[in-house]
Amino acid sequence: MNVIALLTDFGLKDHFLGVIKGVILRINPQAKLVDISHNILPHNIREAAFILCGSFSYFPKGTVFLTVVDPGVGSARHPIAIKTKNYYFVGPDNGVLSIAAQRDGIEKIIALENRRYFLKNISSTFHARDIFAPIAAHISKGADILSLGPSSRGIEEINLPPPKISGNTLNAEVIYADKFGNLITNMTKKQFLDFTKGKDFSAILKNKRIKKLYSFYAQAKDNEPFLIEGSLSLLEISLKNKSAKDYFFVKNINAIKINIKRFL
Amino acid sequence: MNVIALLTDFGLKDHFLGVIKGVILRINPQAKLVDISHNILPHNIREAAFILCGSFSYFPKGTVFLTVVDPGVGSARHPIAIKTKNYYFVGPDNGVLSIAAQRDGIEKIIALENRRYFLKNISSTFHARDIFAPIAAHISKGADILSLGPSSRGIEEINLPPPKISGNTLNAEVIYADKFGNLITNMTKKQFLDFTKGKDFSAILKNKRIKKLYSFYAQAKDNEPFLIEGSLSLLEISLKNKSAKDYFFVKNINAIKINIKRFL
Amino acid sequence: MNVIALLTDFGLKDHFLGVIKGVILRINPQAKLVDISHNILPHNIREAAFILCGSFSYFPKGTVFLTVVDPGVGSARHPIAIKTKNYYFVGPDNGVLSIAAQRDGIEKIIALENRRYFLKNISSTFHARDIFAPIAAHISKGADILSLGPSSRGIEEINLPPPKISGNTLNAEVIYADKFGNLITNMTKKQFLDFTKGKDFSAILKNKRIKKLYSFYAQAKDNEPFLIEGSLSLLEISLKNKSAKDYFFVKNINAIKINIKRFL
Repeated sequence: MNVIALLTDFGLKDHFLGVIKGVILRINPQAKLVDISHNILPHNIREAAFILCGSFSYFPKGTVFLTVVDPGVGSARHPIAIKTKNYYFVGPDNGVLSIAAQRDGIEKIIALENRRYFLKNISSTFHARDIFAPIAAHISKGADILSLGPSSRGIEEINLPPPKISGNTLNAEVIYADKFGNLITNMTKKQFLDFTKGKDFSAILKNKRIKKLYSFYAQAKDNEPFLIEGSLSLLEISLKNKSAKDYFFVKNINAIKINIKRFL
Repeated sequence: MNVIALLTDFGLKDHFLGVIKGVILRINPQAKLVDISHNILPHNIREAAFILCGSFSYFPKGTVFLTVVDPGVGSARHPIAIKTKNYYFVGPDNGVLSIAAQRDGIEKIIALENRRYFLKNISSTFHARDIFAPIAAHISKGADILSLGPSSRGIEEINLPPPKISGNTLNAEVIYADKFGNLITNMTKKQFLDFTKGKDFSAILKNKRIKKLYSFYAQAKDNEPFLIEGSLSLLEISLKNKSAKDYFFVKNINAIKINIKRFL
Repeated sequence: MNVIALLTDFGLKDHFLGVIKGVILRINPQAKLVDISHNILPHNIREAAFILCGSFSYFPKGTVFLTVVDPGVGSARHPIAIKTKNYYFVGPDNGVLSIAAQRDGIEKIIALENRRYFLKNISSTFHARDIFAPIAAHISKGADILSLGPSSRGIEEINLPPPKISGNTLNAEVIYADKFGNLITNMTKKQFLDFTKGKDFSAILKNKRIKKLYSFYAQAKDNEPFLIEGSLSLLEISLKNKSAKDYFFVKNINAIKINIKRFL
């Protein structure tokens, strides 16, 4: 399998993307390049980890995920490759790969130290070009990952915060806003229903109230915010044909709390 | 032929695109994915229909157009596939496919009901992943579209408004503004010339006057607005090396009128 | 080799990109399309030339670069194809190809005049579709470039301005700001070190001072601007995990001066 899926914060204007795609095709002309996203907020490891986690499992077995959000480029953080049950993940060891790799099941972690697989000159500012892209290309071409460097025991981890119950309140959080303005929370439908037992509830987000859980958008009235299970299997706060992000005046996704009270 | 062309309002940041591309490649590893646009204004069916209509005919015979702008996802609107003279169109039956499919010549409309071609779990918010992407992948792999569900007689239609003549005035409309700020109208050069007979005219758009029809940009003076036949075979309002959208202070493309008077 | 790399100012919303990709695949179904960037500022030839120059050399030998930033479309400027030592460049003869082609070594310049390789109808506004895309497709398919039109002697040239020494001052310039807000200058590290001889210096940019040259981002203190050799082998002005563009209140990249004084 030759698919290399790319996820970065490089944006879609500069030379960065053309460069890494050129580097890959030079090593493996058969590689099939698929862009997941290059519009991750600059240096936002958590956002990239979340989007990788929401998309990786739909790709063909053997896909190599080249994931570069790398504020520490050139410093002590290690470049790594991870072999999981079904995939390969390549990127900096700063947590960006951790959630997805753990979900798929980590089988092997390699510290990328064999310079034979790098470009000849290694800059201190663009390891995506000099290290990560060539490594991904070599893996997609069938290189044995054990040849890329020594095995490593652990990786840097980041975790999505879990929702917490305190008495009759469920404390959840908005962790991402998508392009349609849907506010994605950290709670699953199951966690929510285990808490409310399917009875009435009242959720408060930035002083506004949400009272309904719907199964599809068309059930809602105009201008009525509601909870709905989104495509990531997490509850999202949405409005019908409207941006919940605008409705709730959300600017930055930074620990926005939702407090849900149940009426038993 | 293995080309699948993608047109959506999913944007280029979230996990949506990676997911549907992964789903397609899992079913048809040979698929050739081509992005038309993912920056359609959210839920703007008319805009997507216009861009599909302006691009489909340049693609190779047999191309599958996966077109998803789907504000009614999860509600009553039907998922459909259309076989036309040269192409396949897959998407929701809300009008988004209608202009392009009718121009190419509709041969068969199928209501997508055979769940054997869907993903196993069907969400209520992301049919692009669960239904449309797998269907497009199967068609590109050679699946008989008659196997995808029962035939259907008609589709939802939307139409671009035609220009209207009233005495010595031609009433036209701006229907789209492109990235360069060109304002694309709903009139062809032929309709315009049939009306003006090649003589002097005066067009009024938002209280500003346009007096020239040019053949190429370089004919114009600086800061002079003019009409020109654009690449969609429609007349566009342009300025040389400048945005007509800015010049005319156009914000939203929403039924902006152009009144053209002829001097016979 | 079948790689066609695309660089334009067409943006990612309109029908333009879908159209030219469709045109290419119709002529060469085996073409491998790689997007370098479509977000060049409208009509900004210099910016496109810079990004092409920063990325072309990483692509596989034989890659065809379809580069269209073409404010003079439909006027006297010529459509050309250039064969260089390792690559092919196709686009308008307005300087956009010149820096990259000269760096790789120009072997042949062809004026595209053989209409047999164009689309049948040539518009005056969209030569990317009608001329450049079909030509790129035919070259990638193996067409002899001598068959595309007569040889030509020269091309329009643009050049990046070189830094200048005047007494104890080195006058450099910011020529590009990337997505991370790094300000890319026109001086190489070697030019800088030849001037400062590795001793203390003081650079002034918009009344703010830069005193350090670092090897990687993590060496810097918070909120401390510094010089660093970037991935284009030019010195860049950066801050650690922060946008230098914002820090220095840079809006447009238009001849922004940096004055560097040396203390010998």
